[in-house]
Formats: sequence, C-alpha cells, structure tokens
Amino acid sequence: MEGTVKCSANYVPLTPINFLERSAIVYRDRISVVHGDLKFTWAETRDRCARLASALHSLGISRHDVVAVLAPNIPAIYELHFGVPMAGAVLCTLNIRHDSAMVSTLLKHSGAKVIFVDYQLLHIAEGALGILLKTSSKTPKLVVIPDQASSSSRVSDMYFNNDNLEYESFLASGRPDFEVIRPHDKWDPIALNYTSGTTSSPKGVVYSHRGAYLNSLAAALLNEMPSMPVYLWTVPMFHCNGWCLTWAVAALRNVTAKGIFECIAKHQVSHMGGAPTVLNMIINAPSVDRRLLLGKVIVMTGAAPPPPHVLFKMEELGFNVTHSYGLTETYGPGTVCTWKPEWNSLPPDAQAKVKARQGLHHLGMEELDIKDPETMQSIPPDTKTRGEVMFKGNTVMNGYFKDSKATVDAFKGGWFRSGDVGVRHPDGYIELKDRSKDIIISGGENISSIEVESVIYSHPAVLEAAVVGRPDDYWGETPCAFVKLKDDCNANADEIIKYCRDHLPHYMAPRTVVFRELPKTSTGKIQKFVLRQKAKDMGSLSRTSRL
Amino acid sequence: MEGTVKCSANYVPLTPINFLERSAIVYRDRISVVHGDLKFTWAETRDRCARLASALHSLGISRHDVVAVLAPNIPAIYELHFGVPMAGAVLCTLNIRHDSAMVSTLLKHSGAKVIFVDYQLLHIAEGALGILLKTSSKTPKLVVIPDQASSSSRVSDMYFNNDNLEYESFLASGRPDFEVIRPHDKWDPIALNYTSGTTSSPKGVVYSHRGAYLNSLAAALLNEMPSMPVYLWTVPMFHCNGWCLTWAVAALRNVTAKGIFECIAKHQVSHMGGAPTVLNMIINAPSVDRRLLLGKVIVMTGAAPPPPHVLFKMEELGFNVTHSYGLTETYGPGTVCTWKPEWNSLPPDAQAKVKARQGLHHLGMEELDIKDPETMQSIPPDTKTRGEVMFKGNTVMNGYFKDSKATVDAFKGGWFRSGDVGVRHPDGYIELKDRSKDIIISGGENISSIEVESVIYSHPAVLEAAVVGRPDDYWGETPCAFVKLKDDCNANADEIIKYCRDHLPHYMAPRTVVFRELPKTSTGKIQKFVLRQKAKDMGSLSRTSRL
Repeated sequence: MEGTVKCSANYVPLTPINFLERSAIVYRDRISVVHGDLKFTWAETRDRCARLASALHSLGISRHDVVAVLAPNIPAIYELHFGVPMAGAVLCTLNIRHDSAMVSTLLKHSGAKVIFVDYQLLHIAEGALGILLKTSSKTPKLVVIPDQASSSSRVSDMYFNNDNLEYESFLASGRPDFEVIRPHDKWDPIALNYTSGTTSSPKGVVYSHRGAYLNSLAAALLNEMPSMPVYLWTVPMFHCNGWCLTWAVAALRNVTAKGIFECIAKHQVSHMGGAPTVLNMIINAPSVDRRLLLGKVIVMTGAAPPPPHVLFKMEELGFNVTHSYGLTETYGPGTVCTWKPEWNSLPPDAQAKVKARQGLHHLGMEELDIKDPETMQSIPPDTKTRGEVMFKGNTVMNGYFKDSKATVDAFKGGWFRSGDVGVRHPDGYIELKDRSKDIIISGGENISSIEVESVIYSHPAVLEAAVVGRPDDYWGETPCAFVKLKDDCNANADEIIKYCRDHLPHYMAPRTVVFRELPKTSTGKIQKFVLRQKAKDMGSLSRTSRL
Repeated sequence: MEGTVKCSANYVPLTPINFLERSAIVYRDRISVVHGDLKFTWAETRDRCARLASALHSLGISRHDVVAVLAPNIPAIYELHFGVPMAGAVLCTLNIRHDSAMVSTLLKHSGAKVIFVDYQLLHIAEGALGILLKTSSKTPKLVVIPDQASSSSRVSDMYFNNDNLEYESFLASGRPDFEVIRPHDKWDPIALNYTSGTTSSPKGVVYSHRGAYLNSLAAALLNEMPSMPVYLWTVPMFHCNGWCLTWAVAALRNVTAKGIFECIAKHQVSHMGGAPTVLNMIINAPSVDRRLLLGKVIVMTGAAPPPPHVLFKMEELGFNVTHSYGLTETYGPGTVCTWKPEWNSLPPDAQAKVKARQGLHHLGMEELDIKDPETMQSIPPDTKTRGEVMFKGNTVMNGYFKDSKATVDAFKGGWFRSGDVGVRHPDGYIELKDRSKDIIISGGENISSIEVESVIYSHPAVLEAAVVGRPDDYWGETPCAFVKLKDDCNANADEIIKYCRDHLPHYMAPRTVVFRELPKTSTGKIQKFVLRQKAKDMGSLSRTSRL
C-alpha cells in the first residue's frame, strides 16, 4: 500500500534465536538449565551460546555449514541448538544408539564440518571418523564434551591423543559479544534431522528458522505453558530437536521412572514429554520409586499411539496428558487431541479412548486431511473409511537433504504424505489405524496392529506388547504378538489369544504370541522392523482354516 | 539446501484467517461470541465471516480495497475482522467518537469502498457521506448493522431512504463455501488504523497479515491464555483492532463497572483488557455494583501508564493485572512488564511501583531500546538518563498510508521512533517518563506529567487527574492539574498543591489546580490536547519567584 516501506524497523526473519535473546533479557537471572549440580541462568546460557557461535566462526564455520552432535540430554546439546544457528550453521543431531558405521554414513551424507561428542560416546565417533578416513581425506573436527554434571571434571588427557578439542576450552576461546549471524531469509535452514528408528533408510529432514519459530510458539501455546515452566527433558533432544521445545524452554541423561519422580519432586516440574513407553514405565513403577505429585504435571505424549489403558492409568496418578501426533517431517507434533470439557463426564475408559485419538491439526499447521492417496479425495468422517494422513503448513519440512526424488514424492499433489493410515470421526478428530507398513494384511483383510495392541495392553498381566505380521502361505500374513509380562505376573500364549478373541473380531486375534523383551529406539519407540524380521525368521504358520 | 523445495505443502503466508479456520474445526460447537441474548458457535462465526467475504466479493470488492466500519463492540465488528480480510480487503475501523466531518476526511483518505455502520451511528455516517458527495461523485456503499442484541430486531425502513444495505440480508446473500482469498505475500495489508484521540492529525497505520498473526500468538502466550479463555471485550475493537486479540479470541457496547462485574459473574470471564481509566472505574465502583470474584481474572492494561495506586487497588480486589505499553504503530502492546516471583515478597505499594513500569519487549517484538534520538546511542540503565523509546520487529506497522514522509521519519535510523520519553532501570525494565509532547518544561527543567499525576492519584479524595503545562511568561510553563474528586470527597486546590509538595520536588508541584470532568477518548485515554488548550486559554500565571 502506498506510503509503506519494508525496513529493519518492521521486518525481521523469524528465528528461535530471538527467544534466547529475549530470555537473556527478561529472565536473565532465572535458572535456564539444571543438570545434576550444574545450573545456568538465561544470561549465562546466552553468553555460552554466543561464545560457541564465535568459536565455530573462528574455526571457519560459515552460513549453511553442517555441525553434528552425538550426545544425550546434557546442557551442551541444548547450547548447540542455539549456538550453531547463531553461527549461521545447521545443527545435525545424531541418534546416540547409532553405531560407528551409521554415524560415518550420516557424517558423510551431511558433510558435517564439526562433530560435538559426549565423552561416553567418543569411541563411536572416533570409530566413525576412522571409517570416513578410508574414503576421504577430510574428516570433521571433533569436540569432546566432558561430564557436565560434575563441575570439577575435565576430559582426561587420554581423549586427546588426536587433535580433538575440548568443549569448555572451545567455548572459552569464543567471544560473548560475537555478532550473531541471523538468517537472511525465512527459508534458511536451522536443522538437519535424520529419520531413524522404525525405518532402515535414513533421510535428512531439513527444518527452517521460520518453521522452528512458529512450531515453538504453537507448542508452548497448545501445551498451556506459562511464562516460566519447569520442563523436564525426558524426550531426547536429538529427536526432532525435542519436538521443537528446545527452542521454546532442564535434562536427564538416562530416563528411569525413579529419576522422573525424583526430578518432579525436587524441581517442581510443571511440564514434561514422553513416548507411550515412558508413560508405561511411569505407571508400572514400583511403589518405592513413586512420589506423590504435589502440583499438576502436564505431559506431552506422542511418537506412537498411546494405548487407552496407559492414558487412563497416567491420569489416575495425577498427570495431565496431552496427546500429539506427528513425524520428523512435521517438526514433531502435527496434530493435537484437544480436550473438550464435555468429555469430563464420560466414564474414565471412554475418556481414555477419546484421548487416544490423534485429534486435529496443531496450531502451527495449516491443514490436516485424510485422503485417498490416488484420487486425493478426502475420505468421509465415518470412522471406517481409511486413507492416508496428509499435512500442509509452515511446520512441514523444507525437504530431504540431497534427495530431491524423495522430496518430490513426499509433496506430490501439494500435500505432505505421511505414509500413515487413519480414519476420521464425525467430530472431525482423526484416529491413526497404522503406519502403512505396520498394517497386517491377512486373507485380504487389513488388520490394524494398533487395535490389537490396545487390547493386549489392557490385559492385567501385560507390561508391553507389539503386533506385527507373520508370513503365512495361506493367509499372506497372520498377526504375531510380542509380549513382555509384568514382573510378578504370569500368562501363557493361549490365554492372551483367548483374551484377544473375547475383545476383537476373531480374524484380528494373534495366532502367535512370543514372550520377550521388546527392542526399542532411544526415544522409546518399539522397533517393529526388528520384530518383523523375527516373525519372518519363524517362517509360515501351518495352514489352518479360518475360525 | 540441496533437495529442498518450497511448495503449497510447506509454505503458507501467515494470516490470522488461519486461527478462525482452525477454531471452526477444533471448537466448532463451542461459543465464540456472546452479546446480550445472541450467541454464536465458532462454526457459525466462520460461516458468517465466509458469507460476509462472499457478499463483499459480489459487490466488487477485491484485493487491497479498503472496507470501513463505524461500530461499538458488537458481533458484526468481530465478524468484519475476519470477513474483510477473507475477501482480500483491508479493514479500516473508525473511532465511534468521531463526528461526520472527521469520518468524511478518513473515508476520503482511505478511499473506502464500503462502510458498515451501527444503527445508532447512522446519522454520523450519513452526514459524512453528505459531505463527501459535495466534492466527489463516488461515495462508499453503506451497510447498516441492526441491534444485534435483540434477536427479533431488523432495522426499520426509515434507514433505507437511500439504497443502503442491511447487514443480515447482506450476509444472507453470501455463500458459506466462498473460496477465501488468502494473502499472496507476507507483506499483504490486513488493516488500516487511523491514530486518533490524543493527537489532532490522524495518520493511517497499516498492519500486515503476518504482523497480526505473530502479535496474536505472542499476546495469547504472554497473557497466559488457555485454549478456551472467556474474554470480556471492554477494549474497543476499533482501537488497534482490540490489541490484536480480535484475531486471538466475546463484547460490551457500553463499559460500566456494574456491567463488567455482572459479565464476569455470568460468563466466568477469565481474561479482559482495559485502559487505566477502566481500572479506575472498577476500583471506585460503589459496593452495590461489585461482585466477589470467584476465579482469577487476568486483566491486560495499557494505553496510558497506570498509576501504582490503581494497580494496587485492583490486585486487592483479586484481579491479576498485566501491564503492557505500546502504540497503534506497534499493533498495540510493544512491551510487557513481566512479573518476577521474587517481587511477591515486596510490600504492596512497592509491587505496584514495579508493575507500573512498562517493562521489556513483547514476545513478537525483536528489540526495544531507549536512545538519544540524535546520536542513536543507547542510554545507560541508570533510571535517570532520558531518551526516546524505539522499537524494531515484525509487529511494527508497515507504514503510514499515503504518507511516505511520515513513514520515513518514523523509521529514521532503522528503528521505529515512538515519540515517547523513558528511562531504563538497572534490571533492564523501561519506565515511561512521558510522551514527548506531554513533558512540561518549566524554567529549563523537564517535568514528567506522569510522575506528578501518580502523586495526585494517591491522594485519598482524588478519582482522576491529568497534568499539563500552562503557559507562563517567566517559567515558560508551569504544571497545571485537572482533577476530578470522588463523589463523597472534598479537597481544595491548596490541599492538593501542598500534598504534591510533600511528595515531590517543589518545582514539580502544580501551580494551578482545576476541578472538573476530564475529557476522554472512547478508549478511556484522557485527551490531554483538550486540557492543554484549556490551560492555554487561562493565560500566563502572574510572575512568581521560584520556591
């Protein structure tokens, strides 16, 4: 419009760096991070992040260079979430369960110029660099992070046989008055996240400063975070950058129910997050490990559909669970199951079922739909017709790094295709039926592994369960359940199968039940691809007629 | 980065239209607007806004056309905040205190093609169109809004002597499935707000879709609004678009303390806003008009610096006051006085003083500074050195419509210059000392009218006060106080002057005290320019030696 002008006074690219700059002013003397005996204020955290950016800059890191980190939830990984973008660079958080071979593959694909490594994981990183050296003369510079929980510690000299750097010395070499390199453009990348865990071919998902900014605000609003939440970091920060909350708001190296209850009591935790397996750990904690909750603790859950039974028990303990669903490609949460006050009068198990649905689109997301992937027509809200869950909005990834084909495929038709199968309820809420690849097809019928698992979880002796397809010469596949029982409980396969047949259509009940530990990713997701391989190794079940 | 792509799946210009679209899905059966007996749900509001956009489109309104509205806080003005942008047009809200001459000036300057008018204000609008017709053959189309509070009402035929349209029939002519016209670009204008009230030359401040979106999110977060607040509309929506909360979340036609207490009790109001004069009305309400607050009511105040005494009394009544400061040019709130828990242990009057400061930059704002307007150097945080309050960020206006010179002046040096004078405290919080033009310069000394007013407000007999400069042949100016006493109280000028001299340096105490009603804008701001004229009309005080 005539008379208006775009200038530095009224236009600034959106970036989460802004949140840290503001917290360093508004909350400068308030605690930012607590880790064991170590505490920082927001002013200190800002100072450390600026030094980090400065030191990276001195090392030759410039705009759009990739900086990797291999570390659990320690203060350094929090600082890297700001310090790396403040140097104009892109943060690549690596999964700490990876072995040296996988780390070397990802370092190569990302072209990372520096890697920050927790002292406990140094052998993995050095192994990876060793592999890289065989094919390339250029390997990333390595910075070792000492044990930050004990203030006296420095990494022992043994770590410095090469020309590795040490994290605290590296920071000390930087200047706190470093002029922060801000994004030129709203599209500038901030993070590169390799999808991992349930799939075998990792892809590098690129996040922008703008998307991270918007998703952070949306997440804080939807989780009803006050100005000064006490956030317990149970979600690994390397997983979708802690669902973007790294940029919205302290951390546990190892997640145990005892540790969680202790932290809640000690720090008056108000908010935390966790996959359903973490919730399961909490509800099954022995009474000696439990503490009474004195205040309301808001728990964000997601990563896998939570069984209604688990939600019910969490609420009984006094937690207030918010259920979100999303993917690495949607900056973590892409939907939220918004609670309606009228549901408070439903019986508890009905409440849990309502809450186990994935809900409606997240505040930062523009649109959520379930469509026929061929015709791109929306499916009717009849709770029956299945389609693919699709997203559109500013909190959808920029694309897959160096993989244009995968990017184009994912965005075909102008929507991000999640690969997940769902239905829509008459109230508009969506419910996941399965990841496409987790659907069991038996005799031409689609069986939702989630539905079978929900029933098994409600069995009083069951601690954890996962259902996959077992190859079958006649049926194609039949449901195969992997079950872990509670410590003091007993049940045999026939009992579990009978229980399922009592609660499900017969064709959906498992034909095979295997009792064992369930393999999990570091975020607590059950690795179904491992179980699918186990089921495959069992071979076909003998032919049987359908019951 | 290689492999990424910008497309409809991952990039959408930010716009508050998105909030309405989402609410119509997530909260579709929940109450959106309550006005007398009239209630709408979010689905109904969305439907009405789409019809409004459709009807405007059929009338020939297209992208960037200006649509004006002259109405108090009725549902229609809320609907226009979405319906007009959904037609691609720009909403221009006019102050209901304007006379026909001013309205005709603004209609001409804005080039508005349609004007929506509340039935009670029809004579003003028709007068304005009459004036316009003398100089131009093209006048805006007029749509009359009937009394929405009584469901049976239709505007009587007498309003339709011309070819005026009627609001509900107009809506009925639109289609609810109208394809919403979304902004092409983040810079697309959404609103045109003429500054008014304390200044005599109105300027047209342009807001963008992006700025409105960001400011709405920031406001909701900073005011700790839950997912389903009950918002009482006491701030006129024509004022900075209700501080952008029109786009974040119901409305009173006339604001009275009795009406406010009744609404809070009836609708369990959780959030409201109001200028200090509204707060003053609340604390001085007779006990028969008061109701006990059953829940926490968060009150956002601003528009003028609140006297500490008023804040103190509000908290005593059980309101939780959040103090913001900003200008039309900063989408309303540009700062917020963030409360720190350690201040809870201060004595109540010290708490009120701390809260009366303007604070730190708002979440949507990038930077706030107090600078020497010549050298652009930041002033030190010593609570003494004065400078001009300046802003930088995405919630600063695009500029002044059709006034490039004013735009360039306002943004000189790459900052938005507020024209307000302030100091910075050692904790970083800023405190306004005065609007530049409200500073009284007496014998070369700057006197902050705010400081003098704060003292007068603390006098037990005083209801309201405003201090301006009275011309003086010797001193240049001397402070002149306009005071309104409480109904059952008495005090004479000498008592007020003595009280001030007991609490202030002598040169700051008023030389003149006038008891009278104070003239106010419709937002409750005291119109100092009127009082300045009154003081001028009194002429110079006789020469006196300084005491």
